[in-house]
Amino acid sequence: MPEEDTGIRRADSLRRENMQTPSPNAYKVGVPPKQKLFDEFTSTVKETLFSDDPLRNFKDQPRSRKVVIWLQSIFPILSWGKDYNLSKFKGDLIAGLTIASLCIPQDIGYAKLANLTPQYGLYTSFVPPLIYAFMGSSRDIAIGPVAVVSLLLGTLVQNEVDPVKEPVTYRRLVFTATFFAGITQLGFVIDFLSHATVIGFMAGAAITIALQQLKNFLGIKNFTKKTDIISVMKSVWKPVHHGWNWETILIGASFLAFLLVAKYIGKKNKKLFWVPAVAPIISVIVSTFFVYITRADKKGVSIVKHIEKGVNPSSVHEIFFTGSFLAKGFRIGAVSAMIALTEAIAIARTFAAMKDYQIDGNKEMIALGTMNVVGSMSSCYIATGSFSRSAVNFMAGCNTAVSNIVMSFVVLLTLEVITPLFKYTPNAVISSIIISAVIGLIDIDAMKLIWKIDKLDFIACMGAFFGVVFVSVEIGLLIAVSISFAKILLQVTRPKTALLGKIPGTNVYRNVLQYPEATKESGILIIRVDSAIYFSNSNYIKERILRWLSDEEEYARDTHQRPTRYLIVEMSPVTNIDTSGIHALAELHLSLQKREVQLVLANPGSAVIDKLNASGFSQQIGEDKIFLTVADAVMTFSPRFELEQP
Amino acid sequence: MPEEDTGIRRADSLRRENMQTPSPNAYKVGVPPKQKLFDEFTSTVKETLFSDDPLRNFKDQPRSRKVVIWLQSIFPILSWGKDYNLSKFKGDLIAGLTIASLCIPQDIGYAKLANLTPQYGLYTSFVPPLIYAFMGSSRDIAIGPVAVVSLLLGTLVQNEVDPVKEPVTYRRLVFTATFFAGITQLGFVIDFLSHATVIGFMAGAAITIALQQLKNFLGIKNFTKKTDIISVMKSVWKPVHHGWNWETILIGASFLAFLLVAKYIGKKNKKLFWVPAVAPIISVIVSTFFVYITRADKKGVSIVKHIEKGVNPSSVHEIFFTGSFLAKGFRIGAVSAMIALTEAIAIARTFAAMKDYQIDGNKEMIALGTMNVVGSMSSCYIATGSFSRSAVNFMAGCNTAVSNIVMSFVVLLTLEVITPLFKYTPNAVISSIIISAVIGLIDIDAMKLIWKIDKLDFIACMGAFFGVVFVSVEIGLLIAVSISFAKILLQVTRPKTALLGKIPGTNVYRNVLQYPEATKESGILIIRVDSAIYFSNSNYIKERILRWLSDEEEYARDTHQRPTRYLIVEMSPVTNIDTSGIHALAELHLSLQKREVQLVLANPGSAVIDKLNASGFSQQIGEDKIFLTVADAVMTFSPRFELEQP
Repeated sequence: MPEEDTGIRRADSLRRENMQTPSPNAYKVGVPPKQKLFDEFTSTVKETLFSDDPLRNFKDQPRSRKVVIWLQSIFPILSWGKDYNLSKFKGDLIAGLTIASLCIPQDIGYAKLANLTPQYGLYTSFVPPLIYAFMGSSRDIAIGPVAVVSLLLGTLVQNEVDPVKEPVTYRRLVFTATFFAGITQLGFVIDFLSHATVIGFMAGAAITIALQQLKNFLGIKNFTKKTDIISVMKSVWKPVHHGWNWETILIGASFLAFLLVAKYIGKKNKKLFWVPAVAPIISVIVSTFFVYITRADKKGVSIVKHIEKGVNPSSVHEIFFTGSFLAKGFRIGAVSAMIALTEAIAIARTFAAMKDYQIDGNKEMIALGTMNVVGSMSSCYIATGSFSRSAVNFMAGCNTAVSNIVMSFVVLLTLEVITPLFKYTPNAVISSIIISAVIGLIDIDAMKLIWKIDKLDFIACMGAFFGVVFVSVEIGLLIAVSISFAKILLQVTRPKTALLGKIPGTNVYRNVLQYPEATKESGILIIRVDSAIYFSNSNYIKERILRWLSDEEEYARDTHQRPTRYLIVEMSPVTNIDTSGIHALAELHLSLQKREVQLVLANPGSAVIDKLNASGFSQQIGEDKIFLTVADAVMTFSPRFELEQP
Repeated sequence: MPEEDTGIRRADSLRRENMQTPSPNAYKVGVPPKQKLFDEFTSTVKETLFSDDPLRNFKDQPRSRKVVIWLQSIFPILSWGKDYNLSKFKGDLIAGLTIASLCIPQDIGYAKLANLTPQYGLYTSFVPPLIYAFMGSSRDIAIGPVAVVSLLLGTLVQNEVDPVKEPVTYRRLVFTATFFAGITQLGFVIDFLSHATVIGFMAGAAITIALQQLKNFLGIKNFTKKTDIISVMKSVWKPVHHGWNWETILIGASFLAFLLVAKYIGKKNKKLFWVPAVAPIISVIVSTFFVYITRADKKGVSIVKHIEKGVNPSSVHEIFFTGSFLAKGFRIGAVSAMIALTEAIAIARTFAAMKDYQIDGNKEMIALGTMNVVGSMSSCYIATGSFSRSAVNFMAGCNTAVSNIVMSFVVLLTLEVITPLFKYTPNAVISSIIISAVIGLIDIDAMKLIWKIDKLDFIACMGAFFGVVFVSVEIGLLIAVSISFAKILLQVTRPKTALLGKIPGTNVYRNVLQYPEATKESGILIIRVDSAIYFSNSNYIKERILRWLSDEEEYARDTHQRPTRYLIVEMSPVTNIDTSGIHALAELHLSLQKREVQLVLANPGSAVIDKLNASGFSQQIGEDKIFLTVADAVMTFSPRFELEQP
């Protein structure tokens, strides 16, 4: 048996738990075998960047096979394409047509949120979904422009360039930002946003977007460029007596009612999911026809007027690769990329879990990044996964990313043939479509659940929400990211410690606050430290442990009990320690020595025991003071056993 | 017994461990009693800001006593002063005189590092130590200007204002920075710098400071303002043939040799600690006398020339409270305050541990902050604890902060009476004193130990070191802080997971890498997650767990073993979870269901079980799938027991 060879003392300790023969000789804490410095380094880098071993599939394969595997890993279509058949295509065709009918009116509206003319929304529904279909690993996501990213991008770029006065520079900066959004997405490593802040941010953005639609919905001419609720409300009320256009309101309100009823029907009966999916395009057709025959546009109903016909022109030369707009584009791109990526990966994961297939976060990032880089060169702005269209795609029975290809071709046809027909489409209807789409982003149930689960998360959620609604999208985002990280830092700098007691009748020691029936041992204080010990918390942990000891000593004095003689630190949750942490432990040891209390450690993990040995701290407190479990340590030092033993 | 009242099922489970009667009924995981929202909030705030309960001493005291306790908590001198006596004063007097003799020449040199005239160094050794003596809790720290902070402050302020062309504005910005350094120190909450980065930063700063001294040491007139080693070396070598002053070098080198020998003697024989302590003032006296009689200053030996006589003038009106210098002063002050605070608290803690008394971090911050705010109004720049002088103070037998008062009065006398005597002191000797002082900041042994303990910490240490030496003090500091935080974020975003096995003959499950003899259970996979589960790592953890499962399934297929049917997640180190974490667990549960694997949780802590219940996740996986220990879970699901039971 291996443990004989490694000279581990354990015989007595083991017998104790099995045969009820208590003994102070405990099972020794294991020290993992030493790794070479280089191996340790490469394995750390690999674990940091990938949750799965990226080279796993390449193991023991001939070279030609490796090339195939490599190509398949970049273009997943090469692996699932082999099994593609007609019955799968049927599902994808229906789903593709459904999401196309939904995306066309949405695209026109979202392009306006980004202060672009309508065709750019359609362009963005053509190239990126095609590329994603070849490279992405989600089978259900519907790619294209989305409301929140359009608004965010529009707001950020508008802060730098006026979209009305300098439309060309504005558009060039949009492409630059899109390019860098793609580049950033290729290299993202960590998740920046918590679920709670995303819920808050999305709800805030939905309200902001809906408020923006009041311009077209009420037919107001002079509308504020700010997005906060107070400025918007001022813009809305000021022209109430002479600036609202009642024909526009009538059209907008009737179609909004129609869309909401369709939405309600789809919600009540899952089989009728196609009703809300086709309602927008029906609204567009009906309202366009209505305006055309009544010429309502002459009565002040604003219409789309003109959409450029034809496929995406190249925009390679429009991207700023030099000058001050380079840095601005990079910053705007990186911020928007964060939201776009979070949204896409959340969608991909949700549907993957429902159909039980795996989403590889790294591959998704490459797919999304590439599609935006290519998009930026073909007149697209930032595309990502759309919540509403992905849900429709899923319910319409899509089987693979081919539904995106179908959608993409329908958009191509639209661009080539039918754009002139949108001339008389009233903007109020486009606004109604956007309002009915973004309402779904306000997830009251999720907010209630967050409140129930975690109050701090709820504060983060509300911070993001009110930041977006009352100040601006950027500030809301900034609040969201700051609160998210502050929470992590708080946890790391001020970790919990717990007093442990023995659960009656077991060998198990647990938090006495969680298990009030757990009993303390006389003369032994057991403290669990609930965090890795780092420079940021090492002094806090040391002082907190000394405070537990002072409390205990005070209590023992008041109740005339034995003074504490052993302080056992349960290290199970201490996953790592740095040099500052070891210093703090050494100072703790010194303080305890002065008080005639012995420091004892229980169950240090492999990284910790390694460093305790390397620093000589194990020798300093005595290696016989380090135990596998709290029970072993108590068994060794408990006065009961001292008395019982010969 | 309380557990009867709370209806906890555990009878069988307990019997098992005690009486060897295995049973699937396990001890139920405890749910801590609900706290009111407000109580929870206040206790969180309190724990975050204080390691000790700040109101602990006020409990059950009459009002008049509360005032006394409150005053004592702000001015610790009121509590220790009562027991002060003549024998304590003897120690403090000797220690105070010793550190005074050491600080006077150092002050003159350090003021030059901060680009100030010498009297400002002396001013800073008068007011701040006095204030600290009344408010501080360390008995051994010696307060005054220190080399590294002087250099840092000098570099940062010099970037904004030229000290030669605009000396008044420069000085005003120094006072502004000092003021805000004090304000910042009053409000610091977290530790920003790890031990390793401080070691690297200090060593780098020491080398930079020593290099700066080459100007006076070699008698060079035109010296670079940059501090990086390459610029300095260029300044040194360019005038080698006609710019070096050989008389200056002779004086500097002889006294440097004298100081180093004195240092060596003090190191070899601890009883002769006073030799290196008085060597600087002796060097100053001897060299001043020597220059005075030989009039070497006429041969190009640069001398101090003039030190303003008299006590600190007020500088309240010199602080910038408006204008662009306000923000600059704040930024410079905050950065310098970080280093000053880290240094002071490290010193205070080191000596407190040696004499076994407690340092209260919060009180120290208040004392240090107040002394700098008051200092900024009385012509002082940033003061903090000096490593070298505190060690001398300790070894000279100081008993209380009274030694700082003694030192402070000696400095006052110096300012009032003997400053004119420094006129002929050669700058080369001041430089020698600085060089011999900062050498002690290079701690090679600590660096070696860091290398042995933690390679990543060593990289942080070297990053700070080379950043300071090759670029600048600010960049070194920036590198230090960035690496420190990157390490924490890395740990939080990419936590470890471990495969657990049963240690033979026990009920204990541990990492199979740390304990190679641990055995896995057939059909049961046990994974420990080594971190709180947050948005930043929840998806990584989920994917990593699924990868463990895939590996295991592959292995089982290859070796024709039972497929995995239960996945036990050991939650002991999972100290907290947020809504993103719960989502990830829910997705994991869904994926496992598709694979016909049952998710089982072991030992969730109080915060975690609370949230699992609130979110309904406990009910989702079944409350009978949550166990107190891994052993309980294995006992319940292990096929062995399934077969044995009726």
